Amino acid sequence: MIRVAIIGASGYTGADSIEIILRHPEAKVTYLSALPEECGKISDMFGQFKGRCELDVVPLDLEKAAKLADAALCCLPHKVSMGFVPKLLAAGLKVVDFSADYRIKDTAVYEKFYEVKHTDTVNLAKAVYGLPELFREQIKGRDLVANPGCFPTAATLALAPLLKEKMIDTQTIIVNSVTGISGAGRNPSAKFHFPNMNENIFPYGIGTHRHTPEMEQVAGDIAGEKVQILFQPHAGPFDRGILSSVYCQPKGNVDGAKLVSLYKDFYKGERFVQIVKGSPAVKDVAKTNYCHISPAFVKGRIVVFSAIDNLVKGAAGQAIQNMNILFGLEESLGLE
Amino acid sequence: MIRVAIIGASGYTGADSIEIILRHPEAKVTYLSALPEECGKISDMFGQFKGRCELDVVPLDLEKAAKLADAALCCLPHKVSMGFVPKLLAAGLKVVDFSADYRIKDTAVYEKFYEVKHTDTVNLAKAVYGLPELFREQIKGRDLVANPGCFPTAATLALAPLLKEKMIDTQTIIVNSVTGISGAGRNPSAKFHFPNMNENIFPYGIGTHRHTPEMEQVAGDIAGEKVQILFQPHAGPFDRGILSSVYCQPKGNVDGAKLVSLYKDFYKGERFVQIVKGSPAVKDVAKTNYCHISPAFVKGRIVVFSAIDNLVKGAAGQAIQNMNILFGLEESLGLE
Amino acid sequence: MIRVAIIGASGYTGADSIEIILRHPEAKVTYLSALPEECGKISDMFGQFKGRCELDVVPLDLEKAAKLADAALCCLPHKVSMGFVPKLLAAGLKVVDFSADYRIKDTAVYEKFYEVKHTDTVNLAKAVYGLPELFREQIKGRDLVANPGCFPTAATLALAPLLKEKMIDTQTIIVNSVTGISGAGRNPSAKFHFPNMNENIFPYGIGTHRHTPEMEQVAGDIAGEKVQILFQPHAGPFDRGILSSVYCQPKGNVDGAKLVSLYKDFYKGERFVQIVKGSPAVKDVAKTNYCHISPAFVKGRIVVFSAIDNLVKGAAGQAIQNMNILFGLEESLGLE
Amino acid sequence: MIRVAIIGASGYTGADSIEIILRHPEAKVTYLSALPEECGKISDMFGQFKGRCELDVVPLDLEKAAKLADAALCCLPHKVSMGFVPKLLAAGLKVVDFSADYRIKDTAVYEKFYEVKHTDTVNLAKAVYGLPELFREQIKGRDLVANPGCFPTAATLALAPLLKEKMIDTQTIIVNSVTGISGAGRNPSAKFHFPNMNENIFPYGIGTHRHTPEMEQVAGDIAGEKVQILFQPHAGPFDRGILSSVYCQPKGNVDGAKLVSLYKDFYKGERFVQIVKGSPAVKDVAKTNYCHISPAFVKGRIVVFSAIDNLVKGAAGQAIQNMNILFGLEESLGLE
Repeated sequence: MIRVAIIGASGYTGADSIEIILRHPEAKVTYLSALPEECGKISDMFGQFKGRCELDVVPLDLEKAAKLADAALCCLPHKVSMGFVPKLLAAGLKVVDFSADYRIKDTAVYEKFYEVKHTDTVNLAKAVYGLPELFREQIKGRDLVANPGCFPTAATLALAPLLKEKMIDTQTIIVNSVTGISGAGRNPSAKFHFPNMNENIFPYGIGTHRHTPEMEQVAGDIAGEKVQILFQPHAGPFDRGILSSVYCQPKGNVDGAKLVSLYKDFYKGERFVQIVKGSPAVKDVAKTNYCHISPAFVKGRIVVFSAIDNLVKGAAGQAIQNMNILFGLEESLGLE
Repeated sequence: MIRVAIIGASGYTGADSIEIILRHPEAKVTYLSALPEECGKISDMFGQFKGRCELDVVPLDLEKAAKLADAALCCLPHKVSMGFVPKLLAAGLKVVDFSADYRIKDTAVYEKFYEVKHTDTVNLAKAVYGLPELFREQIKGRDLVANPGCFPTAATLALAPLLKEKMIDTQTIIVNSVTGISGAGRNPSAKFHFPNMNENIFPYGIGTHRHTPEMEQVAGDIAGEKVQILFQPHAGPFDRGILSSVYCQPKGNVDGAKLVSLYKDFYKGERFVQIVKGSPAVKDVAKTNYCHISPAFVKGRIVVFSAIDNLVKGAAGQAIQNMNILFGLEESLGLE
Repeated sequence: MIRVAIIGASGYTGADSIEIILRHPEAKVTYLSALPEECGKISDMFGQFKGRCELDVVPLDLEKAAKLADAALCCLPHKVSMGFVPKLLAAGLKVVDFSADYRIKDTAVYEKFYEVKHTDTVNLAKAVYGLPELFREQIKGRDLVANPGCFPTAATLALAPLLKEKMIDTQTIIVNSVTGISGAGRNPSAKFHFPNMNENIFPYGIGTHRHTPEMEQVAGDIAGEKVQILFQPHAGPFDRGILSSVYCQPKGNVDGAKLVSLYKDFYKGERFVQIVKGSPAVKDVAKTNYCHISPAFVKGRIVVFSAIDNLVKGAAGQAIQNMNILFGLEESLGLE
Repeated sequence: MIRVAIIGASGYTGADSIEIILRHPEAKVTYLSALPEECGKISDMFGQFKGRCELDVVPLDLEKAAKLADAALCCLPHKVSMGFVPKLLAAGLKVVDFSADYRIKDTAVYEKFYEVKHTDTVNLAKAVYGLPELFREQIKGRDLVANPGCFPTAATLALAPLLKEKMIDTQTIIVNSVTGISGAGRNPSAKFHFPNMNENIFPYGIGTHRHTPEMEQVAGDIAGEKVQILFQPHAGPFDRGILSSVYCQPKGNVDGAKLVSLYKDFYKGERFVQIVKGSPAVKDVAKTNYCHISPAFVKGRIVVFSAIDNLVKGAAGQAIQNMNILFGLEESLGLE
């Protein structure tokens, strides 16, 4: 039984992590921490835990965490996380980190997009990017996994077969995504106040979204060359899910009829990636760790649609998938 | 052409007032004011006004307001309003006030529920409760109208025929209401953060909602005796509308078949109150000044359903209906 | 490992049953049937099962069902169910039936509300009403459980402590409920077409809803006397959940401060019933088997709020809770 | 006072046309027709008209229509419309047709996409494409206007300045759109059943949407050369609105800073097209005839966002804008 500490339990990704572990046959939550001003009973913060998880969320006490837990899911914000991860590792915990702090290998890029100096380049070098369907072998046996961002997960899974097969131009990729509002976090704001967001949809982060360099790095790793992506996110009036519509320029002739089998072969045996006929829909993947993908050849372009739950495959679910790998468990435990 | 100043233009009721007046053939918005920290272009606050109303919202300057306007729609919060209304009146403006400050005639009740001393009892005595379908004659010729609360509007219109006919026990009335979230105002909060409110419904103000004494006062005025109402509001995942389900104990025998004609007779000629067959639905009244009502006799009780748009018939629309009366215009102008 | 057949797998309650059993450590789905015109791959009907459950839904073959399964969750419509349940029982399966056919003990009442002759009074007499928190001991060892309706589940759990303690008048109870639209089933209709239902809320079944006699029967069983309930359902713009606001007239003096402890004592040890402070919210119980209850004493009345997920505690979850009891398993398996 | 007949009044575009004309100072609805099986009181079909428009919807009687009306808004489906428009014209009415039947000038293209022979090429030749901001002068004085499709309206207004200035490659344009569900019409379906569509978003019409040739034709007219567009629509969980995100490859160097002023100059004096800072949002244009546009230069591409209400600027509102032009009225009457 893996004992799990959740560091930063007061946000949505922390709550979803608890939710999944409550159903995990080989793991249990033993420690919850958050900023002092966000402490209290987890079931008071999230009514869904009433009678199901009655732990207290407490200010982080490293010694206690290390004593009570084998693994830490670190759900802290970008920039904050790298202040705690080294200590969690030093205390002997295996860490899955949800922030961007250990995802971007090039610190210059990180520092440009996150506008802060990276303070833990030692562990950055040791961290592995936790997209199991693409990097499973590298994840095994590590101590620190950088859990991918939600948009990069959806986009990378959609692009990987094309990049691997070198079928598309790597400089003209467009990723158009719509995310549910849980992706914006738990802090109230004018934009996501119900009467503003309901019955609404709008683009944001035009030309500036921080998931762009992450996508480009991972896509580049797969392609074996520098990749440039125009990524445009939109916020839509629903809780959970990301739908990505990815537009690519093929390099040579494309046999549209073979696209689906290319994808099916590439993801053969991958439980959590399903190639679907017709239209992926976010509702089909909500509250699951699955990614639904559908490629199509349209007017000389390849268009790939992918859908995930931003909080599950895009955060807590993938983190637990990674944790299962780190501890040598069946990868899908708790994620059926 | 009535020139209208909107005092407190940065909230939803202010915005809906502008929206209605934009379509009003005999009125125009000439002055917008708000707290200094909420000033700026109205079209920056509410994107819907881009190219339609490009006025600046400015800190209140009474002299200017009086010069530029004939009427003031005062959309300030409870307690704040009574600090400004006397000045607006003194400056010669006719005032429709959206707050509760001039609705509750018994200052002891007001002071208990609003926890503040009433500072303008002079004008309180002169104010008329602006529910035109019930008090039209009293409204004519006044200078100050207390625009009714949204819940009291829906409940009172549902109850009035029964109270007037003395058909129901006045001590056991239950008003169960569900409101859309625009009723909660424009300030972001954890409760009405999209990921909390979406796909949700919950009761609030249990036993304490401030609209209770207002309902009881108006119901009492109609009944000619003291009325007690158990009022329970709920928040539901939609923008606009209040649905009230009102449960009453009849005093004598009720001929269920005649209920509908009782209501039709009572509201004969009242354009904005429609007696409908079957179920009133908030969507049918959204963005209109109409109230849909349907009474039924069920298992010995009378159940009356009523639906309004909380921001229109429950606020801005009714205010402009009142304003039309104050200025001797056709009551429905701008409200078709 | 209990092998489960789902009879009527093409509807929402069938799908939720599969969803829960996929996470159940001691049960698995082995057989899915539906009307011939609704057969096919379950993962084509419900995209959420892609890669998770790839069984075929087939026309019912009793012999096969009996061979492949130990238990049947019978998700057929009212009136249809009683044609199949006797055969499933005769084939040796333990049956949890989701329809109303085995809930109403008085066939005259059943026949009045469902407008059809009851054709299986033999098994009706043997069936037990499957609300485990109230009738657990009677459920053990049975072959046929009548799974309660969604509204009666929420209302009965809210009322039981008051009825048991004889604290309220049993002739003036009002149950005002709002349900999410999954409760209306999977067949498209004008009412529940997205552009009609979205941003809407309305009452329905005014004075006629079939869950009324079921509520009255169960409430009467608890109270030990005839109970009369005015039940009024409403449809609200969300997928899952029922919020019931229950209004009762106390018989004697009520100590409001002791209401909460009365409820806590009554449901002590009941994992799936949680007494919460403040407002129950449907979002807190969505996709769980929990019922959140909060009682209050308001203006001489007792008002009790209860929230459940209509498809889980109100259907599939409770059915599996019942199935666990029938097979002597830990009651909460699969329902964590 | 223009007397308006609405042919095909039982659908959403018919209802929105009535809604707008109710507020139009120089027009009134005098005649409503629909298929015989869809006739009855308009206020029974659409509760919003209760007490506001109590006309009967009747089977079309051309003589009567011609006697009672000066203009016909023809809201019939594609393929059906061209059977009635010639008769309406022959009867002396000016016609604004909502279908695609008079939009596509090349009958071969029309016949390929709509899979039916065009039966009224005479009037097709005389019809003008009714996008007033681009073709105002051609509209004046006509008898028949082909009212544009909703997606082509949003996309064309976004693209026009770039095409006119020949700034972009005309073969690689991508239009990614999300529409609210009113766009799918009033007939219930499994896809748009509330529990399927709510909390969902998905692509549809992949590679096949019929608005593609319409967009390409109009874009080609503006550009003066053949244009190829990859158009991909998505359905999102809201009632009203289309958000289009348009991706273009510039032909030469682009001065990003000048993009906004290019758009502002192009649409100078156009009341219904507003160039906005930041993100256009569908909620800002809901229930208005406005189009909000925002262009940006991102990573070597030009990305243009545009938002309209699909039923207003994308249908009924634009139709009435066209009608105003046909009758020599101020173009914005009824559309403030």
